[in-house]
Amino acid sequence: MSEKIYVGVDVGGTTIKVGLCDAEGQLLHTYEGATETDKGTDAILHNIARYARNIVEQSNYGWEQVDGVGVGIAGFLDISKGYVKYSANLYIENTDLKGFLERELGKTIKVNNDANVAALGEAWAGAGRGVAHCVCYTLGTGVGGGIIIDGKIVEGFNSMAGELGHIAIVPDLEAIQCGCGKMGCLETVSSATGIIRMAKDAVARGDRTTLAQVENIMAKDVVDAAKAGDEVAARIVSRAAYYLGKSMAMLSIVLNPQYFIIGGGVSKAGDFLFNQIREVFEKYTQDQAKEGVKIVPATLGNDAGVVGAAGLILRG
Amino acid sequence: MSEKIYVGVDVGGTTIKVGLCDAEGQLLHTYEGATETDKGTDAILHNIARYARNIVEQSNYGWEQVDGVGVGIAGFLDISKGYVKYSANLYIENTDLKGFLERELGKTIKVNNDANVAALGEAWAGAGRGVAHCVCYTLGTGVGGGIIIDGKIVEGFNSMAGELGHIAIVPDLEAIQCGCGKMGCLETVSSATGIIRMAKDAVARGDRTTLAQVENIMAKDVVDAAKAGDEVAARIVSRAAYYLGKSMAMLSIVLNPQYFIIGGGVSKAGDFLFNQIREVFEKYTQDQAKEGVKIVPATLGNDAGVVGAAGLILRG
Repeated sequence: MSEKIYVGVDVGGTTIKVGLCDAEGQLLHTYEGATETDKGTDAILHNIARYARNIVEQSNYGWEQVDGVGVGIAGFLDISKGYVKYSANLYIENTDLKGFLERELGKTIKVNNDANVAALGEAWAGAGRGVAHCVCYTLGTGVGGGIIIDGKIVEGFNSMAGELGHIAIVPDLEAIQCGCGKMGCLETVSSATGIIRMAKDAVARGDRTTLAQVENIMAKDVVDAAKAGDEVAARIVSRAAYYLGKSMAMLSIVLNPQYFIIGGGVSKAGDFLFNQIREVFEKYTQDQAKEGVKIVPATLGNDAGVVGAAGLILRG
Repeated sequence: MSEKIYVGVDVGGTTIKVGLCDAEGQLLHTYEGATETDKGTDAILHNIARYARNIVEQSNYGWEQVDGVGVGIAGFLDISKGYVKYSANLYIENTDLKGFLERELGKTIKVNNDANVAALGEAWAGAGRGVAHCVCYTLGTGVGGGIIIDGKIVEGFNSMAGELGHIAIVPDLEAIQCGCGKMGCLETVSSATGIIRMAKDAVARGDRTTLAQVENIMAKDVVDAAKAGDEVAARIVSRAAYYLGKSMAMLSIVLNPQYFIIGGGVSKAGDFLFNQIREVFEKYTQDQAKEGVKIVPATLGNDAGVVGAAGLILRG
């Protein structure tokens, strides 16, 4: 039992998920506990440490086998210091998360943001296994992103690299303001929120669409309507796909990754969405840059967070 | 005299420039010889090897001190193999440049494209000295680019990373076709060629501009007219600056470099151009991503190529 193991912690607003991985990124064991955001920063920090110990205790592995603990957390960080500047959904600010966990757990600690960590999970042990250069998108409420070059997360000078949802890609004339305050961000059109907004706008405008009969429109309703032949819905999904494809064409000439990996709820639209993205990508990407490049679905689902967090120790 | 030295070779269509650097990127000695493109691939290869030997012979250093020879060359490469797939201005194709030079010189050889190499030169020993993450633009006939993360060139899966001039950034409605075959590339508006084209279009359209009196419009004429208050010329320079600034905003949320370094002929427009770029960058870049980020002029001029080529040995 001298095999090394890696603990990955995915800190969400409600639940803290923990995973135990081997050096290949195989998920050996999982654990979940309440975040207890309402009890404040100290409680959250102690819960992270406690759950990290708990998962190892409940497994067949010993604490001495733990080579390190990685943590993924939503918010603005100083990644290299493992410092949380501000996390809106945890109500944490100016907190030395890495320092606390090092003292509490006596192990190597790495901290990164949730989107980068999910990207690393997919690149390390999911759809991108064995691929050195991957760009990952998570299409959910927003558009999350992470960039993996030579197997490692690109962090950037202010820990702000990989924020793909905030690429200003919609031309000024058609741009609306993003939650970040800027105009024309990718997530204004290619997130679930963006798709829902475009659908509601179409209904409010009086466009002829079956979506007018849907009471509380979800992104899935729009995709389903588009698949069923609703032209208004189809135009909305095409627009979401168009800007995703264009962003990938652009990233191909900037970073030239081998794989674009797409996860998150909206990605469940499957080939209906993927093929439209691929078509735009084909059109806008230079031949030399796209040879052998693939746009593929994520494979780890909700496990990407804990697997990627564990991966921070080896690949962070 | 046991200090290690690094030879950098910048292979141009007419001239092969060679530089000798120390481990800090200080240029110790330079040498130049004819490329002799008309004599064919073999002659060019032998000239590269010969000039690399010559520069060391003419210096106070011994061949045994040479830690490696780096080569920058325009064209499509397989960077990791040092293989030239195709170089339009040298009439070279399918050539194992690295293999040839290894046999001929018996040293570590690294090959990369000219734009990446110039970027590394600036990042290593020019405007970006001491800065880990830099994105470099060369505004010349085209728009060249290179990305340095953690001090190293980002190459990409097909050796196509850093081709910043081919970011499809001009919206479809205003886009024209680029030399690469794609629509709306940055270099269609922000290169010398792009500026000249916009100026000629304006004159042909009959716009009221002093440029109508210029016989053979150069980019510098357009910049000078803009500085002198010509509104048509000013609009053209602003457009070139706008898309540069927008591309930097986009790269800030993708890679979040600390420095954007701008070199090449068009960059000589100075603060008149830089301040417009900075204004657009400010407007489109998220606060968290732009803190401490600078847009600065390149400092090495034409030496960036040989210095960066030498740098490939330590930083490639």
